[in-house]
Amino acid sequence: MSQYKVIGTRPIRHDGLDKVTGRAQYGADFQAAGLLHGRILRSPHAHARIRKIDASAALGLPGVEAVATSADLPDPGNRVANLGEGAIVLRHLSNNCLAGDKALYHGHAVAAVAAVNGHVAEEALALIKVDYEPLPPLIDVQKAMEPGAPILHPDLVTETMTGPSEDKKPTNIAKHLQYKLGDPDKAFAEAALVIEKEFHTATVHQGYIEPHNATALWNPDGTVTIWCSTQGAFTVRAQVAELLQLPVSKVKVVPMEIGGGFGGKIRVYLEPVAAVLSKKTGRPVKVLMDRAAVFAATGPTPGSYIKVKLGADKSGRLTAAKAHLAYEAGAYPGSPIWAGCVCIFACYDIPNLQIDGYDVCVNKPATSAYRAPGATNAAMATETIIDEMCTKLKIDPLDFRIKNAAREGSRRADGPTYPRIGMIETCQTAKNHPHYKAPLTPGTNPAFPRGRGVAAGFWFNIGLKSTVAASVNSDGTVSLVEGSTDIGGTRTAVAMQLAEALGIRAEDVRPSVADTDSIGYTDVTGGSRVAYATGWAAYEAAQDIQRQMCERVAALWKVQPEEVRYQDGGVVSKNGAAKRLSFAEVAAEVQKHGGTIVGRASVDPPWPGGAFAVNIADVEVDPDTGKVNVLRFTAVQDCGKAIHPSYVEGQIQGGSVQGIGWALNEEYVYNAKGELTNASFLDYRMPTSLDLPMIDAVIVEVPDPKHPYGVRGVGEVPIVPPPAALANAIHQAVGIRMDVLPMSPGRVVKALAAKSK
Amino acid sequence: MSQYKVIGTRPIRHDGLDKVTGRAQYGADFQAAGLLHGRILRSPHAHARIRKIDASAALGLPGVEAVATSADLPDPGNRVANLGEGAIVLRHLSNNCLAGDKALYHGHAVAAVAAVNGHVAEEALALIKVDYEPLPPLIDVQKAMEPGAPILHPDLVTETMTGPSEDKKPTNIAKHLQYKLGDPDKAFAEAALVIEKEFHTATVHQGYIEPHNATALWNPDGTVTIWCSTQGAFTVRAQVAELLQLPVSKVKVVPMEIGGGFGGKIRVYLEPVAAVLSKKTGRPVKVLMDRAAVFAATGPTPGSYIKVKLGADKSGRLTAAKAHLAYEAGAYPGSPIWAGCVCIFACYDIPNLQIDGYDVCVNKPATSAYRAPGATNAAMATETIIDEMCTKLKIDPLDFRIKNAAREGSRRADGPTYPRIGMIETCQTAKNHPHYKAPLTPGTNPAFPRGRGVAAGFWFNIGLKSTVAASVNSDGTVSLVEGSTDIGGTRTAVAMQLAEALGIRAEDVRPSVADTDSIGYTDVTGGSRVAYATGWAAYEAAQDIQRQMCERVAALWKVQPEEVRYQDGGVVSKNGAAKRLSFAEVAAEVQKHGGTIVGRASVDPPWPGGAFAVNIADVEVDPDTGKVNVLRFTAVQDCGKAIHPSYVEGQIQGGSVQGIGWALNEEYVYNAKGELTNASFLDYRMPTSLDLPMIDAVIVEVPDPKHPYGVRGVGEVPIVPPPAALANAIHQAVGIRMDVLPMSPGRVVKALAAKSK
Repeated sequence: MSQYKVIGTRPIRHDGLDKVTGRAQYGADFQAAGLLHGRILRSPHAHARIRKIDASAALGLPGVEAVATSADLPDPGNRVANLGEGAIVLRHLSNNCLAGDKALYHGHAVAAVAAVNGHVAEEALALIKVDYEPLPPLIDVQKAMEPGAPILHPDLVTETMTGPSEDKKPTNIAKHLQYKLGDPDKAFAEAALVIEKEFHTATVHQGYIEPHNATALWNPDGTVTIWCSTQGAFTVRAQVAELLQLPVSKVKVVPMEIGGGFGGKIRVYLEPVAAVLSKKTGRPVKVLMDRAAVFAATGPTPGSYIKVKLGADKSGRLTAAKAHLAYEAGAYPGSPIWAGCVCIFACYDIPNLQIDGYDVCVNKPATSAYRAPGATNAAMATETIIDEMCTKLKIDPLDFRIKNAAREGSRRADGPTYPRIGMIETCQTAKNHPHYKAPLTPGTNPAFPRGRGVAAGFWFNIGLKSTVAASVNSDGTVSLVEGSTDIGGTRTAVAMQLAEALGIRAEDVRPSVADTDSIGYTDVTGGSRVAYATGWAAYEAAQDIQRQMCERVAALWKVQPEEVRYQDGGVVSKNGAAKRLSFAEVAAEVQKHGGTIVGRASVDPPWPGGAFAVNIADVEVDPDTGKVNVLRFTAVQDCGKAIHPSYVEGQIQGGSVQGIGWALNEEYVYNAKGELTNASFLDYRMPTSLDLPMIDAVIVEVPDPKHPYGVRGVGEVPIVPPPAALANAIHQAVGIRMDVLPMSPGRVVKALAAKSK
Repeated sequence: MSQYKVIGTRPIRHDGLDKVTGRAQYGADFQAAGLLHGRILRSPHAHARIRKIDASAALGLPGVEAVATSADLPDPGNRVANLGEGAIVLRHLSNNCLAGDKALYHGHAVAAVAAVNGHVAEEALALIKVDYEPLPPLIDVQKAMEPGAPILHPDLVTETMTGPSEDKKPTNIAKHLQYKLGDPDKAFAEAALVIEKEFHTATVHQGYIEPHNATALWNPDGTVTIWCSTQGAFTVRAQVAELLQLPVSKVKVVPMEIGGGFGGKIRVYLEPVAAVLSKKTGRPVKVLMDRAAVFAATGPTPGSYIKVKLGADKSGRLTAAKAHLAYEAGAYPGSPIWAGCVCIFACYDIPNLQIDGYDVCVNKPATSAYRAPGATNAAMATETIIDEMCTKLKIDPLDFRIKNAAREGSRRADGPTYPRIGMIETCQTAKNHPHYKAPLTPGTNPAFPRGRGVAAGFWFNIGLKSTVAASVNSDGTVSLVEGSTDIGGTRTAVAMQLAEALGIRAEDVRPSVADTDSIGYTDVTGGSRVAYATGWAAYEAAQDIQRQMCERVAALWKVQPEEVRYQDGGVVSKNGAAKRLSFAEVAAEVQKHGGTIVGRASVDPPWPGGAFAVNIADVEVDPDTGKVNVLRFTAVQDCGKAIHPSYVEGQIQGGSVQGIGWALNEEYVYNAKGELTNASFLDYRMPTSLDLPMIDAVIVEVPDPKHPYGVRGVGEVPIVPPPAALANAIHQAVGIRMDVLPMSPGRVVKALAAKSK
């Protein structure tokens, strides 16, 4: 029997009905009196100097109320700030919203129009004359690193582990990270088996259904209100405040419901633009993106070039590792290269290693976070080489991973040692799973070979700040206010932890996501942190409620507070007869006199130990077309304690599917001019339900020892192993080692042809 | 120099700009996708049995989506509940929203229609066939008390001080209260001067500019959301929950801005109706009243019949008092008779008294609160008799009041003794005021006599429950969330108390009024309680912030929490060197690690000592038309400590003006059928700026000793003295003692004619 009453159950989510009935209000639903509609003019060039922008004709079009360019945004300077998803130069953030002196990618925002409706605004875009001086585009990360490459930012200096590089030659390399443990060269020399390979992964997009949107009202009193769909209302507040040079308290962000984010709805694109258009017009301005703009101009995850070398002894013990990772930052520095470096070997305890990571600017949209950012690219390299090692050493790939698994006390490449983690349990669960034990079933067409692959993945879930407030209602329920926007059912996951702590039902908690004026500071919904950190805040708020309930009941019973305690959903007398008032009874009682009870907590917890996932994938390959069908897919993951198993399973399934899409089909296709040629859901091929088997989500529970309920966070790591697992399955099926993502039909056919030569 | 930095200053109100620019969202501004528009069918009869309602023709009109009658509301039963403005029988509250088997006043809601727009809804009202059996109407409170009067509620039993009356004969008397002190009969027999008089006061309306409105969405999951303009979101929640038989947590009330309430926007009228229409249609439904409906069917303040007898000794010491008060309840029991009884002699320390109060049903709209409910009627009687005594005894009327004034330790008619109060200081301030010292100036037309009158008034401001939450922002500001709807600048008055307690500027607090899901329980905005109780909660929340700041700074300085303290807007080291971090520095520091700081408090404070006001009024009477011109008007009031003097002055001025309107012109005019014949601002004569002199508001500050800042509450008592002050001035001008309100031109002419006979 579970030690919990609420945690581990599957109540209906509190916001479910509003969402399935269309009542939920998303950013695009926002309406206001006098609303103007904004649209963005985007660069047709991948790289061009902007000599002049002439908006006079657009401003002359009836119905056009304002045009904005980067000249309307204050220059926030070169300060580096961390405003939600890593450090960024403020001027870069601003120029990404409206280009400064250069357009740095095809689709880069150059100007904005506010008009009485969207049609007029779009018409006006065509009337804005931009005088461009086209420059040579750069879309390949390796070419961008070569001496003599075209330069995106003439003033860019490479940031190293010890500060800015002393080499002041123009460069596209924004950052060079290096991590070392032991003596890798010596270890390689002594290794029984060494494999080194190179990998290329394409730029892919999160593909959320809801395009970006933002409405702003700049009041004459200097306050700005923003309504938008975002992963973090306070994150938007911080960015808007910096970009508009306002104190944060002058900016109020109202988070509307969000139709998917996956990391891509953290950075602002439209919010500051809507704000300046509102300032110019004195009216609220709503700016929407269409799908093409989402693809062309919001942050995809970086394409990358990765070279990995692994060494092992005869027994299959990994002894040495080296990695060179070059991640595309896109137009402005800021790829998740740090995460790529730290994750690439994080599943394993390798005594000798060296990792070199490079953040490299190219003429693509500035990359942003996407579910375990940077880790999927990295896992493709390590996990496919390990598979090759297992083949060569004739070791079961899960046994190999268990043998080498990181465990409590193992040292991570960047320094810290692991607390209690679940890599071994995850591998063991996969090994014992019926899928792994069952033989591959033969297909009906013997010309379509089948194969099975496994792969593992790591992601370091994070902590950060969360605030909740919880008011006790007279009917024995609790109104819960949280600052975390809900992108994956976290209203319910947080409410359940409050309910567990108070001994009430999940249904008796009524959660709301508040605007930035109405709840304490709360960091972004990302890093798989909300169920962990905001849940922890809910637990602490429950303790605050318990304390107050004990005080009030003690007063009622005319005893000292220490003579009562909170237990099993009620206040009981510690001494003497079994006096008891249930939570609902106390809630009704305190309503009579003495004020209501409000619990609150603001936390900044230590990070959890990290999450591990293992996939088992069966595929069938059509050798004529190169199409890979996924036949069976099992995703095993250490979730710590799963608060709401259905949503945990949903996260595992969703992440796995995105990993499968990344593995097999998704990629940004650029032509020689650097123009994105597939900015639509028709041409950018995401998997549909017809492309997928049932994803069998298997929850492993190794509770995080610090968290009151052992939560670890679950949202990101499921995307990490799929490409490698599928590559390994393809190898087993047709004997080719894919070293490129996506492993699309054309590439598979090409690889098959190369093999048969 | 003031002991305060923020309290007593006059910052610009936080919501001012939104209101003057039209950005503020009132209930009627609410829009939603699929919104239906509701209208109410009202009874043409003052008293009628409803035999049958046939809505088939209305339902057949294209565009009509639903019709609702009382049959659609669950019967909440005969339970008595206090849901915001005094006890009420739940079935009565329900039947006032949609009439049960009887229509009890002209304009009583009988049925409701929801349609695609308001025009169709109004057209549909005409198609609803109601089969009425008219009954004799009863609009006079004295006739209603007579044996054999028509009976409104056949099952009504008079409630007395000791429980239900044993006399089970049908009656319209819902309540009989009686308070006694000493031996009044003996005291009257010994008195040197005894005066007894009868008074009649008309039904008057609060006359707020914004009509009632409510939008409801009944979700299929059984939750109901209400958007409305109300004095108390939680009060609406409680009423809607009771009337729809839902737990309170299933009802969410979103308070929109409110365009005046004065007590009249506490009871629900439209909210449950909008909710059932939404339940029937599955769509949001907005119901609006027009001005005629506001007059005819929302709660005015009771008309009354009052008989008062006062006895004094030769020196002018009041020795005995008796009062008989009969207040119109309107259609359902619930007039403010208790307040009338307690207030009628509350300004004075009278050793022997008896007060009998009656709550009497008549065929008028159910009365509701209006600024110091019940006290103005009562003061008209006592204060004009005292004036007559002063004339007869040749004592200055302010000296008389000072001599008899209630003071700390005086006993109030209903039992409690006063704490520190300011009646004496208020009278003394009036006496020393230049207005009182200046002689009456003669008019240009000697045929228009002039006179001066004074009068006093009492109102017991209340306490009740308030909750606030306050989140510290990284820029050194605070986001303040409160449950009190803001009808008179209380966002600012509460924010100022928080600012004072933290040693920051009022402008550095950003207040929001939250919905019922987003803040702890907070009682109605009424009883002059918000600046007092919600301000107190803000003070306590500031203490909570101070405590946390001290803990955090102690950790930062690596000292024990008791080694630091909060002082002058910052945390300082108690021992050793003068270490100090300002509030803003701590706010920025805690943002870096350890979570933000959120203060919260929920209070239920003891009631303040009560408020006293004295008016000095100069008038000129046109003897031909009976028109009374107010020449000069000074309103002196003990406000405790005035938080924001401008808003205190505004409350004094607004209340005085409403009292002047009540005194001179306002009244409900009924014809013999019981039909209200002046339900418009054209025919119901409220004073305009052209009718009024500048109201000189004089703030007396006798701090309430319990409140952290000495606040008493200021909103209601200013309405109490004006009718009596004007009556006394009229007497001085033309020698007539008016005993009826309003003292409209016709009545004054009639009294002048009677005098000259």
